Amino acid sequence: MTKPFAIIAGVGPGTGASIARRFAKAYSVVLLARNPASFEPVVNEINTSGGQALGISTDLSDSTSVRAAFDKISKQYAGLALAAAVFNPGGGFVRKPFLELTEEEFTQGYESQGKGGYLFAKGTLPLLLEAKGLPHPPTLIFTGATASLKGSANFSSFASGKFALRALAQSLAREFGPQGVHVSHVIIDGVIDIPRTKAWKFEHEDAKLDPEAIAESYWHLHTQPRTTFGFELDLRPYVEKW
Amino acid sequence: MTKPFAIIAGVGPGTGASIARRFAKAYSVVLLARNPASFEPVVNEINTSGGQALGISTDLSDSTSVRAAFDKISKQYAGLALAAAVFNPGGGFVRKPFLELTEEEFTQGYESQGKGGYLFAKGTLPLLLEAKGLPHPPTLIFTGATASLKGSANFSSFASGKFALRALAQSLAREFGPQGVHVSHVIIDGVIDIPRTKAWKFEHEDAKLDPEAIAESYWHLHTQPRTTFGFELDLRPYVEKW
Amino acid sequence: MTKPFAIIAGVGPGTGASIARRFAKAYSVVLLARNPASFEPVVNEINTSGGQALGISTDLSDSTSVRAAFDKISKQYAGLALAAAVFNPGGGFVRKPFLELTEEEFTQGYESQGKGGYLFAKGTLPLLLEAKGLPHPPTLIFTGATASLKGSANFSSFASGKFALRALAQSLAREFGPQGVHVSHVIIDGVIDIPRTKAWKFEHEDAKLDPEAIAESYWHLHTQPRTTFGFELDLRPYVEKW
Amino acid sequence: MTKPFAIIAGVGPGTGASIARRFAKAYSVVLLARNPASFEPVVNEINTSGGQALGISTDLSDSTSVRAAFDKISKQYAGLALAAAVFNPGGGFVRKPFLELTEEEFTQGYESQGKGGYLFAKGTLPLLLEAKGLPHPPTLIFTGATASLKGSANFSSFASGKFALRALAQSLAREFGPQGVHVSHVIIDGVIDIPRTKAWKFEHEDAKLDPEAIAESYWHLHTQPRTTFGFELDLRPYVEKW
Repeated sequence: MTKPFAIIAGVGPGTGASIARRFAKAYSVVLLARNPASFEPVVNEINTSGGQALGISTDLSDSTSVRAAFDKISKQYAGLALAAAVFNPGGGFVRKPFLELTEEEFTQGYESQGKGGYLFAKGTLPLLLEAKGLPHPPTLIFTGATASLKGSANFSSFASGKFALRALAQSLAREFGPQGVHVSHVIIDGVIDIPRTKAWKFEHEDAKLDPEAIAESYWHLHTQPRTTFGFELDLRPYVEKW
Repeated sequence: MTKPFAIIAGVGPGTGASIARRFAKAYSVVLLARNPASFEPVVNEINTSGGQALGISTDLSDSTSVRAAFDKISKQYAGLALAAAVFNPGGGFVRKPFLELTEEEFTQGYESQGKGGYLFAKGTLPLLLEAKGLPHPPTLIFTGATASLKGSANFSSFASGKFALRALAQSLAREFGPQGVHVSHVIIDGVIDIPRTKAWKFEHEDAKLDPEAIAESYWHLHTQPRTTFGFELDLRPYVEKW
Repeated sequence: MTKPFAIIAGVGPGTGASIARRFAKAYSVVLLARNPASFEPVVNEINTSGGQALGISTDLSDSTSVRAAFDKISKQYAGLALAAAVFNPGGGFVRKPFLELTEEEFTQGYESQGKGGYLFAKGTLPLLLEAKGLPHPPTLIFTGATASLKGSANFSSFASGKFALRALAQSLAREFGPQGVHVSHVIIDGVIDIPRTKAWKFEHEDAKLDPEAIAESYWHLHTQPRTTFGFELDLRPYVEKW
Repeated sequence: MTKPFAIIAGVGPGTGASIARRFAKAYSVVLLARNPASFEPVVNEINTSGGQALGISTDLSDSTSVRAAFDKISKQYAGLALAAAVFNPGGGFVRKPFLELTEEEFTQGYESQGKGGYLFAKGTLPLLLEAKGLPHPPTLIFTGATASLKGSANFSSFASGKFALRALAQSLAREFGPQGVHVSHVIIDGVIDIPRTKAWKFEHEDAKLDPEAIAESYWHLHTQPRTTFGFELDLRPYVEKW
């Protein structure tokens, strides 16, 4: 590995992959996901098309697994700067009437989004603080959702996780912004156009968010100078109700 | 026990005690706190002044402990209606630079406020749904804080817990409101005038929230008819910056 | 007139009338509305049932008219304290596709709610600041709506007026709270059960806000001590979608 | 004029000029400001460096003046598509204790920001709806401020204007998004580095927002496809307290 790098946590065939591809145009990229099948196609695609990518199987809500991933990263990228880190796991989504939710189901929103965000920030911030000589300020971006702003009926698990993640993002932006690290939170409000949602039909065309367009916005946030940090951006299809 | 009852979770010498006293004017009250020393003075005070109070030592973030408390309540209050439930634990407050936070410290904000809120709602909602023939709609009130709306630097643990609790409150209000249960969230924005803060000095007099006034607002919310449910109310001293 | 007084601006047969009746239990009340037919029945009802009420025909968005009303009030209530003031006009509601809105239609949301709020605050705050020896802090309450928080399609006129009013309320709360005046903003989210909406049918019973219950919440806010001022409270029927 | 065009309303030597320069890389640009001295240097700069720019003296809060400007635009750009429109006037800023505000001072926040926004939207939306064959969806961006979200003490005039403008932006986004027009609202939270603020000293370097970086973010929003419209983005210097 010879370039500054970026870490993308939560990479499946959708947004994470698009973010990885976008950041791979400038950086070596590390892709984290529990299941290697989730990141392998993208890792191969990037490596065979002139980029640098490394996939590490990681359970983002497990501190031992996350620590092992960052140990590996420290070795592989020794001496290189971490330019950007994106937290984008889709986990923790449960939709159920409240009285049917088990404790484990309720807490999995937080395990994935809140604690997962903590572990990822704990691993990346020391590296981001050390990063020097980069064209853009080191950046940490968290992916939010509709449920980051609204606790809907039957969404108590996921919303409490996404609210917790937003609190974390705000707190980190206020603590680490003045230290030169750009912390952002992007609210994805709508269905993303990924393999899993391919068959979902909508009344209008183009009614699903395009992962590549999402990735462009993440990249734009990353390129902002420290005079002009964006914190929160909400993205939705033109026909979305909100 | 002969009257409809209310359950107050998180009772120390401050807000919880004042809420218990206020609701004890109308109901038998159950006080939950980990340490019996926290609720015993209030329980005695209520019982010796013509009210009915029962204290149960409970770890509100532990499902076994919470279940045991509700088993006890079910026996003691068999056949009686649960009129109101208030979730008010002060736990999970940690204020620390992010990189010094251990995982246990970070998650304790959520353990106390998010998971604790879940366990309390899980125990009380079935009883609230069954409550009939009461003068006011059955009510579940959660206590929020400044950190429910803003993730300040060094507050990532507590803010993520309080954000999660607010998400839960919103979700439950939307699910159970239409079933007749009044769910509310009160944001306490400032220092409360309790024994622990007695010595804290402020530039102006009356600069601390009065627990009895807070309790009056909780009672007011409880008395609202189902045509006119208040969801969120923010309370602060007249001189508070916000 | 022999008692401290309250001024209710925007009194028709609904919320304003209920607020007037509620505050008339404790105070002499002044009712402002453009059309005397709007306040006369309530004025008579209060005066014939042991209370004190005075109606003044006022165009709340016209400074000359508002000034004349306050001149009259100053004479009638010379030496008496203004205990509370409530701004509750329903004017400025326009619902139209944006491109069909005339300039006059667009600005009427602001004329009624924004400028009207300014004129009312300008008239009442000097009196509220002078009020002494009252059982509760002098209070200024503004009535908001769903459109105070959300600019929906076709609501640009009304929402811009209600947003402006909320900005005013926040600004006044921050400036006059420390001077002992309690400024609040109540968000009415739903249809109110008034003569005009009597025939509107809903799927569920009790689906409309009860003006008397709204008035009880205004009264509750008024009675809060300065240690514990509530700023914002949202009220809606139990079945309302939000 | 031979290219699709953009209209920038509120052009002085700061943000407006930078936005005009940025959009002039792709489009012919029309610059609106009351005083020709405000736009002439930028118009000349763009025209002498290979771009196309036209300045029109316009009082953005006066319907007659705005109509005259759009009549002129219709003639000059007949047959050409309006690609983007940006509403960025700085007017209406008043900071004063409330009781010292005259009615004219209070309403000038709204006149500039609320009514001005209405008039600009009324002029641009019909053109944006007609725009066809452009590389990016036609876009209408409004400039907000800290006061768009918070009514601080002494800011009632400006905040009520900026709140009103945000309500308008939300309403238009919801009405015209589904018709393919991208409506956005950018919150500028901090001091912008412009000639007027050059001498303002801050504890840290880079403590002022860079107008060119702001312009890049406006351009980024403009380039988003309709699958992925950003509505609101908040921008602030890395050391800003918020």
